[in-house]
Amino acid sequence: MEEQIDLVGKAFADHYYHLFDNDRPALSSLYKPSSMLIFEGHKIQGVEDITAKLTSLPFDQCRHVISTIDSQPSFSGGIVVFISGSLQLPGEEHHLRFSQMFHLIPMLEGNFYVQNDIFRLNYG
Amino acid sequence: MEEQIDLVGKAFADHYYHLFDNDRPALSSLYKPSSMLIFEGHKIQGVEDITAKLTSLPFDQCRHVISTIDSQPSFSGGIVVFISGSLQLPGEEHHLRFSQMFHLIPMLEGNFYVQNDIFRLNYG
Repeated sequence: MEEQIDLVGKAFADHYYHLFDNDRPALSSLYKPSSMLIFEGHKIQGVEDITAKLTSLPFDQCRHVISTIDSQPSFSGGIVVFISGSLQLPGEEHHLRFSQMFHLIPMLEGNFYVQNDIFRLNYG
Repeated sequence: MEEQIDLVGKAFADHYYHLFDNDRPALSSLYKPSSMLIFEGHKIQGVEDITAKLTSLPFDQCRHVISTIDSQPSFSGGIVVFISGSLQLPGEEHHLRFSQMFHLIPMLEGNFYVQNDIFRLNYG
């Protein structure tokens, strides 16, 4: 069970950041109307507004490098995933450290969607 | 509702780190047998083992300084709280940056306990 949780968390993180870095509009497939995002303190709700936010960030290209992924089962069969890593932007010499947490809720067929998403850059 | 969630998150964070810095064994009051902690990648479950871990860290005195608190309602009436800040240890010139997330679950009388707790230091 514990290993399965870790595998789901890792698979989700790989999938999420792959989409973010290569096909950002496709992230909409991971959210639902009830989903909530707090991005650097800005609160956004619902798949449409979340997708609009993520696709209008002030950089087109980026690359996420994951440092750590911690996953735990949550109530109602969900999973909380806590990720730390760095964000590389074109033309920027220094990487931006970030932390992000997701609360994944199960859907049919073994899939999960993102109910809670909180993102913060880590200023040193 | 949104403001209430933020108030609960802030009150919890203030309470948690006040206990951590001044009366660490009392943190046991915030966990239950089902609670889970991942501390720097180490998985611990249950109020007894979590309390044993937190009270046996290799420093007696510390001070948490909170930088950001982000809170969202979760399913089943819970709250997810995501905190960033710095940890000051005696004799250490540099502060340690950290990120931590909690999933709080409501109990009777308007109180919450910690079901999920994930802590990571942020290495720059």
